[in-house]
Amino acid sequence: MVNKLWDHIQFVRDQSPLVHNITNFVVMNNTANALLAVGASPIMAHAHPEVKDMVSICQAVVINIGTLDEYFVKSMKMAAGQANALGKPWVLDPVGAGATPFRDEVLSELLALHPTVIRGNASEIMALAKANQTVTKGVDSTAESNEAIDAARFLQETYGAVVCISGATDIIVGSGQTIFLKNGHPLMTKVTGLGCSATAVIGAFIAVIPDKTEAVAAAMALFSLAGELASQTAAGPGSLQVQLLDQLHSLSEAGFKQQLTISLHG
Amino acid sequence: MVNKLWDHIQFVRDQSPLVHNITNFVVMNNTANALLAVGASPIMAHAHPEVKDMVSICQAVVINIGTLDEYFVKSMKMAAGQANALGKPWVLDPVGAGATPFRDEVLSELLALHPTVIRGNASEIMALAKANQTVTKGVDSTAESNEAIDAARFLQETYGAVVCISGATDIIVGSGQTIFLKNGHPLMTKVTGLGCSATAVIGAFIAVIPDKTEAVAAAMALFSLAGELASQTAAGPGSLQVQLLDQLHSLSEAGFKQQLTISLHG
Amino acid sequence: MVNKLWDHIQFVRDQSPLVHNITNFVVMNNTANALLAVGASPIMAHAHPEVKDMVSICQAVVINIGTLDEYFVKSMKMAAGQANALGKPWVLDPVGAGATPFRDEVLSELLALHPTVIRGNASEIMALAKANQTVTKGVDSTAESNEAIDAARFLQETYGAVVCISGATDIIVGSGQTIFLKNGHPLMTKVTGLGCSATAVIGAFIAVIPDKTEAVAAAMALFSLAGELASQTAAGPGSLQVQLLDQLHSLSEAGFKQQLTISLHG
Repeated sequence: MVNKLWDHIQFVRDQSPLVHNITNFVVMNNTANALLAVGASPIMAHAHPEVKDMVSICQAVVINIGTLDEYFVKSMKMAAGQANALGKPWVLDPVGAGATPFRDEVLSELLALHPTVIRGNASEIMALAKANQTVTKGVDSTAESNEAIDAARFLQETYGAVVCISGATDIIVGSGQTIFLKNGHPLMTKVTGLGCSATAVIGAFIAVIPDKTEAVAAAMALFSLAGELASQTAAGPGSLQVQLLDQLHSLSEAGFKQQLTISLHG
Repeated sequence: MVNKLWDHIQFVRDQSPLVHNITNFVVMNNTANALLAVGASPIMAHAHPEVKDMVSICQAVVINIGTLDEYFVKSMKMAAGQANALGKPWVLDPVGAGATPFRDEVLSELLALHPTVIRGNASEIMALAKANQTVTKGVDSTAESNEAIDAARFLQETYGAVVCISGATDIIVGSGQTIFLKNGHPLMTKVTGLGCSATAVIGAFIAVIPDKTEAVAAAMALFSLAGELASQTAAGPGSLQVQLLDQLHSLSEAGFKQQLTISLHG
Repeated sequence: MVNKLWDHIQFVRDQSPLVHNITNFVVMNNTANALLAVGASPIMAHAHPEVKDMVSICQAVVINIGTLDEYFVKSMKMAAGQANALGKPWVLDPVGAGATPFRDEVLSELLALHPTVIRGNASEIMALAKANQTVTKGVDSTAESNEAIDAARFLQETYGAVVCISGATDIIVGSGQTIFLKNGHPLMTKVTGLGCSATAVIGAFIAVIPDKTEAVAAAMALFSLAGELASQTAAGPGSLQVQLLDQLHSLSEAGFKQQLTISLHG
């Protein structure tokens, strides 16, 4: 599996997929830089008169609701609908799921457009599952991490998406299998938008890799390992953001294979 | 006082307040990173259907008019009104006060919602006072720094806000007292949005510290000293932004107490 | 010519022009930082009630359509119109020209407002020329670089703008002369918005330098050389963005004159 994930990373570097992002204002810059660093080409565009045209020329779409408003919500729905119409993959980042009723309504509408992948932290994945269950069961375990996995499994089975719970351990829930990645570093939580950057990188990987579960695993393996290596040398969160981009760009096959910590279930 | 300010810095790190920002596009990323670096948790949200809900779950609000437009102005007024209704503190950054009539009108409306704190540079504080005086006197001294202090005093007395004038010397005008901080470095003026970042950090401090004058002093002491230390090692303004975030995150008690330059009046 | 370009760089540092930017969300932060680093003062403002007032107090305008939408398009047209009315120079960055019909329509409207300078990559300049030719000839050479120069020449002659094609070689097409700059580094293509930053820096130079072709050449010479020097020491694209700002701020006369690679035609 480690060999396969590395091949995917190299494939993205070689293919340089064009990825269309409708994302939040806070992370547009570092998200675009993360995409460039892994070898992809980012486009950021949200104008209603061109959203569908942009989806048509890209290979994947990233939708992140962080600083959503009515205009951007319409852009997101247009882009997701067009991605579906053209059979292109798209990833949803449900930033702040559960924080306000408005977010939950928008997320329900986006879920109905069947994202290829959903990536959030445990709290967001649980909120997303809870808000979209018609029967109030299935997300009822007591331990928080198990609860998040149950929520991810519910979303995976109901909507057909690969679901990624990012955190100290990144958990990727695909159809019939679950992948655990134990790289990363606590300092990464002190830099804004690293989760959003990981989502964008997932967009680059699902753009060109047919097996979407492996695509998400490869993206998260690269991202969390780059973050871990950057954290080991960074003097603080400012340096970490900079060195993370350097590592995303230059991480070598040897470094990747020696230091990746992965386990598979199912 | 120095001991007390350090205790406040440590308290923010321990409490990790949730701070809601309606701020400008230029600084959203570094402002969020500054909040994370001092130990707070940032939220950026401006959609009318959720602004009030967001204020309700946060402990303070930051309003910065840098790239204002009609939609954001309404968001700001909704947030400030809701903060008042819930008794939550909010800080106003009057970016570009005096530059256009539109800015001055918006600022008058926001002032009428009684910000807990106002932070700007001398020119902004003077413009804000001038535009909101019904009698054309009181801000008429000849020396610019005195004029700014008079303007700040006018705003403090009229609107009840703690007023911070940032510059080579940061001046905090509270009820009955004025605090002078002499840290910082000229290179800080070559990085965009450091004033905006300081305002956001003030938001984190007023969220959890009852004495708002002390809260502002602690925030500005941390910020200006971190900037000074970062400037001493930075190769230029690019490095300064990075190292400032590192310093905000890691500044130690010993470093703070040895190097802070503060004086009090009144 | 090298001496003259250095004098222009020093003149911008001395004059500190105020530059009004209506630009895209991805690059607002690093664009503002680039302007500060070369000695200019950036303003970012797009609200319809104040756009004209902002143009009035600035010395040049930068219009970049990267994340355009209907509101921003109106802001851009107001700003360009006001710049013309007041005889102030403005620069157009046609990001993504040719990618969607919407972009091409907006660009035609902006071209009709006669930008002082246009800066884009070869693909954008060719798309811009192609979309705005009434007779379908003139841009028909086979070699891509020649085709871009022909397109730039067409735009220069038709609209009177100085046209800059940025790339491995930066080509500046003015009235009756063409300037080639061979500095820069391939790693620069892995950082988002460096083209946009170059455009903003051009804004600072045309603000105060009467000969617009020389102004563009000086801006691009500074930018590409700073990027080349930064690339030589950067560990990757994250570090490059940081060190580029440091170099823009501190590049010395000796370094500039020794390392600039320039040739002139016509």
